[in-house]
Amino acid sequence: MSTKITKPSILPGFMELTPREQVAFNNVYDVIRRNYESFGFLPIDTPIIEKSEVLLAKTGGDTEKQIYTLTKGSTEMALRFDLTVPLARYVAQHMEEIAFPFKRYQIGKVYRGERNQRGRFREFYQCDVDVIGNGALSIVNDAQIPSTIYKIFKELGFDNFKIRINNRKILDGFLRSLNIDNYIEVLRVVDKIEKIGEAKVREELEEYIITSEGIDEVIKFITIEGSNEEKIQFLKNSSVTNERFLEGVEELETVNKYIKAFGIPDKNYVIDFKITRGLDYYTGTVYETFLDDYPEFGSVCSGGRYDDLAQFYTDKKLPGVGISIGLTRLFWSFMESNIIDLDSNSLIDVLVIPMDEDFDYGIEVCNQLRQSEIKVDIYLEGGKFAKKMKYANKLAIPYVIIIGEDEKTSNKILLKNMENGEQQLVSTKECISILNSR
Amino acid sequence: MSTKITKPSILPGFMELTPREQVAFNNVYDVIRRNYESFGFLPIDTPIIEKSEVLLAKTGGDTEKQIYTLTKGSTEMALRFDLTVPLARYVAQHMEEIAFPFKRYQIGKVYRGERNQRGRFREFYQCDVDVIGNGALSIVNDAQIPSTIYKIFKELGFDNFKIRINNRKILDGFLRSLNIDNYIEVLRVVDKIEKIGEAKVREELEEYIITSEGIDEVIKFITIEGSNEEKIQFLKNSSVTNERFLEGVEELETVNKYIKAFGIPDKNYVIDFKITRGLDYYTGTVYETFLDDYPEFGSVCSGGRYDDLAQFYTDKKLPGVGISIGLTRLFWSFMESNIIDLDSNSLIDVLVIPMDEDFDYGIEVCNQLRQSEIKVDIYLEGGKFAKKMKYANKLAIPYVIIIGEDEKTSNKILLKNMENGEQQLVSTKECISILNSR
Repeated sequence: MSTKITKPSILPGFMELTPREQVAFNNVYDVIRRNYESFGFLPIDTPIIEKSEVLLAKTGGDTEKQIYTLTKGSTEMALRFDLTVPLARYVAQHMEEIAFPFKRYQIGKVYRGERNQRGRFREFYQCDVDVIGNGALSIVNDAQIPSTIYKIFKELGFDNFKIRINNRKILDGFLRSLNIDNYIEVLRVVDKIEKIGEAKVREELEEYIITSEGIDEVIKFITIEGSNEEKIQFLKNSSVTNERFLEGVEELETVNKYIKAFGIPDKNYVIDFKITRGLDYYTGTVYETFLDDYPEFGSVCSGGRYDDLAQFYTDKKLPGVGISIGLTRLFWSFMESNIIDLDSNSLIDVLVIPMDEDFDYGIEVCNQLRQSEIKVDIYLEGGKFAKKMKYANKLAIPYVIIIGEDEKTSNKILLKNMENGEQQLVSTKECISILNSR
Repeated sequence: MSTKITKPSILPGFMELTPREQVAFNNVYDVIRRNYESFGFLPIDTPIIEKSEVLLAKTGGDTEKQIYTLTKGSTEMALRFDLTVPLARYVAQHMEEIAFPFKRYQIGKVYRGERNQRGRFREFYQCDVDVIGNGALSIVNDAQIPSTIYKIFKELGFDNFKIRINNRKILDGFLRSLNIDNYIEVLRVVDKIEKIGEAKVREELEEYIITSEGIDEVIKFITIEGSNEEKIQFLKNSSVTNERFLEGVEELETVNKYIKAFGIPDKNYVIDFKITRGLDYYTGTVYETFLDDYPEFGSVCSGGRYDDLAQFYTDKKLPGVGISIGLTRLFWSFMESNIIDLDSNSLIDVLVIPMDEDFDYGIEVCNQLRQSEIKVDIYLEGGKFAKKMKYANKLAIPYVIIIGEDEKTSNKILLKNMENGEQQLVSTKECISILNSR
C-alpha cells in the first residue's frame, strides 16, 4: 500500500526556525522573561482563542479586518490579536482576586492576518508588561517601566540604544493653546516626521493649521534640541498655561527625575517631543526605543500610559502604564543583521561518542557528568567515527568525549576540544574539572 | 458618553490561572524544559495554525471532528491538535538541514474541541520529546527517554512513581502464535484491564478469541507477576518462536539493561505486559507513567517507539521514539489534589515599602539589592501603611523593607520577616547578607 504524499509546508507569513535558531530565540525570550520577573511582574497566560464578542468589544479600524475568526456550533470565536485586550478582560473578570497595583507580564503568540510582506508576521510573540492601578496609579511607575527595558537591552548585548520619552498631555496642551482643534490628527502627522521628513510634515499640517506661523511654532516645538534637563526647563519657561500642558510637564519632570534614580544612564534615554504614538489609546507618558546602530529596525519596544484599561468590560476606572516588545519581529531583525551568533549556542557542553555499540561505560561517564551539572549527551547510533564527529560539528557542540577499547580498559576518557582540536586522555573527574573551569 | 459593557468571560473548556497559580505552573514548565534540554533535546516551535491539507494528511477517526478550522480567503487552515503531526511535517520539510538522530523537544498549546467535561481542556499544553532517526534508530534511545522522565518527576518532588514499559511486538507476536488475527482489537481490549477489570476484559475478548483456553492464556500472559528480570526470563523461556515475538523480547531486554545503566532505580520502573497504548501508531517500546499515590491522575506521561514518523510527507523512513507530558491536565490534577504550594512561590524576595511619597532612598535600596541578585520590588502607590502591608501579604512576599524618616536619616532600613513578624534595623549591606544567607 503506498501512501499519498502531502507536500510539507507552512502558511506564508508564519515564522519557523531551525533548532539552532530556536535556541537563540529562546535565549532572547529568557532574558525578557527573567527581567520582567525580577521587577516583580507576575505571569499570566490567557487563552489564544476567546469569544468574539469579548475580543471585539472595542470594534472598528483596520484591526478587525485582520482578525482570525472561527466557529464551532453556535459559538463565535476569534484568535487574540494583541495581549492588551485579553489583559483588560482578565483584570475586569478577576477584579476581586487581584492585588492592586497589578503588575503582570505576558509573553505569548498573537495573530493578525496582515498583508503578506517581508518582516511582517501573521503569528508573532508579544512580550508585554503593564502595571494597572485600581482607580489611581503613581506616576513613578512610568519611570520604572523604562528601567526594565534598559536592563533587557543591556543584557541582550546592546550599549547604544535610546528610550525616547514624551508625554502626550504636553503636545495636546500646546496644540490647544494654539487653538488647534484637530490635535489628534496633528499628533498623527507629527509622529511621522522622522519617516517622511519635515517638508512633508509641513505640507500635511496645512490641512489642520491655517497659518504658516502656527506650523512654524509646532515644528519648532517638536524639534527642540538640548539635554533632557534643558528640554524640561524650556517647557517650564513656556508661556503656555493650560492645565493639560502643565500637568504633562509636571509628570514628565517626575518621570525624568526617577528614571535617573532607577539607574538609567543619560545616554540611554532622551526626552523627544516628536514621539506621540499614533494611537489615541495613550493619554500620558509614551515610549519608543531605538537601537542607535540599527535605526532600520524601527522602534523595538513601545508603550505608554493609559487612563482606562478596561472600559469595555467594567465601570471601574483602571489606569495603567505598559510597554511591549515585538519579539518575533525583533528576532527576525537580529537574524537579518547577523546579530545572532549561531555558532556558540549549543545547549550541551559535551557529546560522549562511544566507538562501538557497548554503551555501558559511556552511559556511566554521562551519569557522572550530569551529576556535576555538566550538560552532556551520548551518541547512541552505529556507523563510522567520521559520521559521529560530523554530528557533533553540525550541532556546534564544544567538546566531545571519545570512548574506545583503550579508554574502557584504562578507565579514562579522551576529551577533545572541538574548537582547537586539542585532545587529552583524562579521568572522568579530571574531565569534570576541565569543563567546569572553562 | 457611556460605553457598552461586555461581560468579561472566557470560553468553556479553557484554563486560565491566577497569577500565583501561573507562577506554580511555570515552575513545572521550567522543570520539564530544563530536563529536556539537559538531555540534549533541541527546541522547535511550530506555528499553531497550519494548512488543513497538511495537518489532516492522515485523516480519519475522532480527531478530525475535534479540530478547529478557520478560513481566510481561499486558504483552509486548522489549529494543531497535537505536536506529533507538526513534528512529522517539520522533519520532512527540513530533512536537509537537520542533523540525525534528531533530538527535539516542543512545549506548546494544542487544540481539541472535545466535549466539555471536568478536567478536559480544549486548549492544553503538550510537552513532547522525540528522537528521530534517518533510516534507523538505536534501541538504546528507548532506554534514555524514560530516564528524562524519571529526572523530571523526581525534580517535581515525587519519589513514588512507576514508568511502565512494554514492547508491542511481544504481545503482537504472542497473539499471532495463538493464531489470533484481530490482534489490534485484542490489544485495545487488553489495554483496558485496569480500568474495567479482568471479568469485563474476558467478556470483551470473547468476540475475538473463540476458546476459553485462548482467553486464559492471554490473561495469564498479561498479568504475569515478578521482578523485571523474572518477567524477561519468563519471555525467554516461552515456547513462542515467531520472529516478531523474539525481536520484541530482545529489544525489551536491551531497554531493561540500559534503563538501569541510565540510573533509574528498580522501584521507579516496571515491565508490564498490560500496557499496550491503544494507538496503532506505536510499533515497539511503549510507556506509561503512574504516580503511586495518585492513581486517579491516570498516566501522566506516555509514549513509545514508532517505525515511521512522516510517511504522509516523505518517502524517507524515519523511525522514532518519544514521550509526552500533558502539562495542562497534569497541573490541573496537582491543583485538585492540593499538591501545589501557592503560599511560598513569590517571584520576589522582598518588597520595599516607602512610608511617604519620596522614593529616592527606596529606589536606591532597590538598586543595591538588585545588583546583589536579590529579587526586589518597590511599592510606589500612596495610601495607608496597612494597605501596603496587605499588598505584601496577598502576594506572599517573604520580606518587606520599611522606609520612613528615621531610616532615611540614619541611612538604615527596617527589614521585616513576614512569616514570623520579626524586624530589625540594618544597613542595606547587612540586609543583603541576611537575604542571601536564607
